[in-house]
Amino acid sequence: MRRFTSRILHLFSPNKQLLSQLEHLLGFTPRHLPFYQLALMHRSKIEELAQNNERLEFLGDAMLGAIVAEYLFKKYPYQTEGYLTEMRSRIVRRETLNNVALRMGLQKLVQYNQNDRGLSRSHIFGNALEALIGAVYLDQGFPKTRGFIIKQIIHPYIDIENIENTDTNYKNKLLSWAQRNNHVLSFDTLEEKVEGSRKLFTIGIALDGEVMATGTGYNKKEAGQVAAQKAIEILAIV
Amino acid sequence: MRRFTSRILHLFSPNKQLLSQLEHLLGFTPRHLPFYQLALMHRSKIEELAQNNERLEFLGDAMLGAIVAEYLFKKYPYQTEGYLTEMRSRIVRRETLNNVALRMGLQKLVQYNQNDRGLSRSHIFGNALEALIGAVYLDQGFPKTRGFIIKQIIHPYIDIENIENTDTNYKNKLLSWAQRNNHVLSFDTLEEKVEGSRKLFTIGIALDGEVMATGTGYNKKEAGQVAAQKAIEILAIV
Repeated sequence: MRRFTSRILHLFSPNKQLLSQLEHLLGFTPRHLPFYQLALMHRSKIEELAQNNERLEFLGDAMLGAIVAEYLFKKYPYQTEGYLTEMRSRIVRRETLNNVALRMGLQKLVQYNQNDRGLSRSHIFGNALEALIGAVYLDQGFPKTRGFIIKQIIHPYIDIENIENTDTNYKNKLLSWAQRNNHVLSFDTLEEKVEGSRKLFTIGIALDGEVMATGTGYNKKEAGQVAAQKAIEILAIV
Repeated sequence: MRRFTSRILHLFSPNKQLLSQLEHLLGFTPRHLPFYQLALMHRSKIEELAQNNERLEFLGDAMLGAIVAEYLFKKYPYQTEGYLTEMRSRIVRRETLNNVALRMGLQKLVQYNQNDRGLSRSHIFGNALEALIGAVYLDQGFPKTRGFIIKQIIHPYIDIENIENTDTNYKNKLLSWAQRNNHVLSFDTLEEKVEGSRKLFTIGIALDGEVMATGTGYNKKEAGQVAAQKAIEILAIV
């Protein structure tokens, strides 16, 4: 009788659907559902700090960064720190995460104001995925979070080899935009300084004669890419 | 007799001194000493990727970021994500970590080329502290790393309340530098765009009429501070 009652309760629970969707997404049964409900609540629905997912996003972002770092550290024992940093930034960048979140179906779970037209340009699903990672950490601790990220996010959705081979050439992208729009673009070395036993370069990008972005790196190519990436963000080139 | 032998071996072990220094520093006995020896080896001493601490620094930096994030998330349950982000960046910034490392006495343990004059301007001890965190993670796992960071780093060396109350005013610092050196400085709003339900501002800093740094934030003050901080780095203002 007791078993029957609990089964009935389970079937009619208003959270039943969410729980089963989360089980599918996470690969385990959540203990404390409110953490996950918070992770799925976007600010456009509830402004109140304690009731939307922005704080959890902060926590999840940090955990994701650490776990991806360890994953890459172990996967690439012969690669430099610079290479690992670049690979990690490609994996955790907002566009990548938003794309992963959409493929995971998070758009069906996230609560947001669908009339807010500005949202279409933001990355609310990727941000919610980070918040979900924060919820998993609070609910289950570090090893489960690590397992979730590796088994449910990296393995099925992140094509590491493809990311590795993509040379995101921001400089070319920026140059071709400038050409299309009749702007004069130049890359100039603003500074070379010695840091430890290495040289550190700062490259500035001037648009029609005005420096509008700078980037720093251990070689000019790297510094130029960083500056170009910033310029692309500032100019909102898609 | 066996006990006597092992005691003698321990006393005469070439690693004995290092082990006891590490025990004091870490608050526990390391299991696998080579991780720690690697963490303490600066690139100026050994260029070879597999034999210096740069990869471990990458790993440790990520773990530190995650653990400080969780620490702040729990310490400040009523603060926004923006506040937590700012507090974290103040704690993990290179100057803070280098200062902590020096107070911990890491300069006595780190192996580096003391004839390399460029090193005086870098943050090799703070970087070695990050590498040490990476070593602790590999040797002991996440919970011990978390305990090490909280008990041996944050509690004794980081004055959270002081960091909280310090309004690092980069803008004022930059303005007073410009005045002292007869430069004309201006802060201009380069862009206002809508991101989600918020506005995102990009402020550019022009030095003698040329934009040389930009910063983005959710309000103009924040964006101006970010830009000013970048300008201070580019101009190497101390």
